[in-house]
Amino acid sequence: MKKLINDPNDVVAEALLGIEAARHDVRVDHANRIIYRRDAPVVGKVGLVSGGGSGHEPLHGGFVGQGMLDAACAGHIFTSPTPDQVFEATKGVDSGTGVLHIVKNYTGDVMNFEMAAEIAAADTGIPVETVVINDDVAVADSLYTAGRRGVGVAVMLEKLVGAAAEQGRPLSDLVTLARSINEAGRSMGMALSSCTVPAAGKPTFELGEHEMELGIGIHGEPGRRRIPLATAREIAEHLMEPILADRDFTPAPVIVMLNGMGGTPLIELYVMYGEVAKIMERAGITVARNLVGNYITSLEMAGCSVTVLQADEELISFWDAPVNTAGLRWGI
Amino acid sequence: MKKLINDPNDVVAEALLGIEAARHDVRVDHANRIIYRRDAPVVGKVGLVSGGGSGHEPLHGGFVGQGMLDAACAGHIFTSPTPDQVFEATKGVDSGTGVLHIVKNYTGDVMNFEMAAEIAAADTGIPVETVVINDDVAVADSLYTAGRRGVGVAVMLEKLVGAAAEQGRPLSDLVTLARSINEAGRSMGMALSSCTVPAAGKPTFELGEHEMELGIGIHGEPGRRRIPLATAREIAEHLMEPILADRDFTPAPVIVMLNGMGGTPLIELYVMYGEVAKIMERAGITVARNLVGNYITSLEMAGCSVTVLQADEELISFWDAPVNTAGLRWGI
Repeated sequence: MKKLINDPNDVVAEALLGIEAARHDVRVDHANRIIYRRDAPVVGKVGLVSGGGSGHEPLHGGFVGQGMLDAACAGHIFTSPTPDQVFEATKGVDSGTGVLHIVKNYTGDVMNFEMAAEIAAADTGIPVETVVINDDVAVADSLYTAGRRGVGVAVMLEKLVGAAAEQGRPLSDLVTLARSINEAGRSMGMALSSCTVPAAGKPTFELGEHEMELGIGIHGEPGRRRIPLATAREIAEHLMEPILADRDFTPAPVIVMLNGMGGTPLIELYVMYGEVAKIMERAGITVARNLVGNYITSLEMAGCSVTVLQADEELISFWDAPVNTAGLRWGI
Repeated sequence: MKKLINDPNDVVAEALLGIEAARHDVRVDHANRIIYRRDAPVVGKVGLVSGGGSGHEPLHGGFVGQGMLDAACAGHIFTSPTPDQVFEATKGVDSGTGVLHIVKNYTGDVMNFEMAAEIAAADTGIPVETVVINDDVAVADSLYTAGRRGVGVAVMLEKLVGAAAEQGRPLSDLVTLARSINEAGRSMGMALSSCTVPAAGKPTFELGEHEMELGIGIHGEPGRRRIPLATAREIAEHLMEPILADRDFTPAPVIVMLNGMGGTPLIELYVMYGEVAKIMERAGITVARNLVGNYITSLEMAGCSVTVLQADEELISFWDAPVNTAGLRWGI
C-alpha cells in the first residue's frame, strides 16, 4: 500500500487537522469529528447536516459552508458516523428552526442518523427531518444497502437544498424539496481499479488487467457485471443506458455531473464528458448545468460515475445561487 | 493500460470536445487546439497566453477565463505546443495592447514560444513579452530542461498576473510583475507511482513497491533520489527542507499550494497539508492563503508537490480578485 499518510488509523483525524489548517470558513470539532460552518448555527436558517464514511472527499466535509451544509460528520474510512456524532452536529447547527439530515442510503448511515434524530427529539425537542438519497440505478440491493445506494445526487441535493435553506425556507419546505430532488436524479458508476482502505492495507477487490466493473459502489461494493475493458464511448453508453431507461428526463433540462472516483485524471473525465454530452444530445435532453471533476470519490479508485438530475427553473436558480465551500464555490 | 479513453492518439482532441461541451465561458479552436476566453480579445487588456504539453489538467486550459488566461495552447500529451499554435493564440488574444507569454521552463516550450514571439513580431508587430517559470528546486538540470523546471508557480502566476491584467495594467508592468512572482516562488514534488502516457501504453518509469521518488518532474523525469516509502510527516519534511533552504521566505506571508499529481485522493492531500502547515508554523512563516487539490498534474501519477510563494499585500489582493475558470473560481 502506497499512500501519503502516517499511521493508517490516524488518517481521518489527521485529514481533519489539515482541513482546519487550510480552511478558515469552517470550524472542526476534533473530538466528535464534525466540520461546521464557522458561523453555525445561523439564526433563522434550518441547519443542514450530512455525513458518512470518510474516503469520499470532498463529500461531505468539503461541502460545508455558505449555501450548502452547516455540518458534516466524518466516520472512519467507509464507516458510518455514530449516532452521538450526528446528535452533536444536530445540536450544533440548530438555531431554533430545526434540522434536516441528508443521508445516503447505506444501512449503517440510515440507522445511525435515525437514532440521532430520535435522541434529538427526546432530549432536546429539536425538530429533525430526514431525506434518504437512493439514486444509484446499478443494483436493487447491495452489500451495505437495502434498496438502491445513495451516490452523486448527494452532491447536487446539498447544493440545491443549501440554497433554499439560505433563503430562509422552513424545514417542511426543505424536506419536500429534498425528496423531490432525490426522486428526480439517477446515477451509475464504474471502476477500472480498486481502492485500498488504509487500515486493510490491500485492495478491496481485484480486477483483471483487461477488465472493468460496471455499477460499482463507492466502497467497492460489487456492481452489475464485470466486462472487458471498453472505450470511453462504450463506457458512456453502459452508464447512460440504465440511467435514461430508469426515468423519463424529457422535456425539462437537466444538471449532469461527470464525477471522478479519485484516481482518474481530469483529461479522461473530459473525454468521458464529451461522450456523455453526445448521448444527451441524441436523446434530446438539454444539459443546463454540469460538473466535471472529483466530487464523490472512493479513495484512489480509477473510474467515474454519471449523475443526471432533472431541474426546473427553480432548481436551476438554486444551483446558480452563491456557494462558498472547498468543493463548490461561485458567486462569492 | 486502463484509461477512460477511445483511441490513445485522440485523447487531447476528444478532451477538448468535452471541455467545449462542459464550459460555456470558453471557445475551443479545435484545428489549432487552443482554448480561448469566450470574449477574447478583451479590449484594453493585455492578452495572457500559456500552454504546454497536455496531461497536466487543469493546467493550463482549466485556467482560461476572466481573471486568469486569455488562451491556452494544448500540445500532445507531455509535448510542447507548436510555434504555429502559439502564434495563432497570440493573434487571437491581442487587442492592441500586446501579449504576455507564460512559459514553464522546458526546452521545447521555451523554444516554441520564442519562435512564436518572433513570428508575431515579424508578421504582425504585436508586442510580445515572455516570462519563463523555473521554480522547481529539485534538480539543477533535467531530462527536458536546461536549468530548473517550471511547475506549481505557473498556477499562482497565472492567477496573480491575470488579476493585474484585468485591472488594465500595461504589458511592461505585467512582465515585471510576472518575473518577480517567479523569483518569489519555489516548488518540489514527489511520486508514489508513475503515470502512463496513453500513446506509450506502459508506465513511464517503475518504482518498487516500497519505494518513492523525491523531486520528480511532472512528466516523470528523474528527481533527486529514490528512497524507501516514508510517512506523510517525513515526506513533508523532504519537500519543505529544500524549498525553505533555497529562499528566505520571512517575514512577509506566503501562499502555499499542496498539489496532487492526479492519482492521489483528496483525503491524503489534506493529511499532507496538515504536515506542511506544522512545518510552516515552526519556521515562523505565516500562510496567508492556500490551495489544496489537483492543479498541475501528471496524468494519474500518485504523489504531490508543494509550492510556496512569498506574497506582499498587493499580491494577496491580486489573489483575492475575482476569477472565473474551471480550475479556480471565486468572487464571481
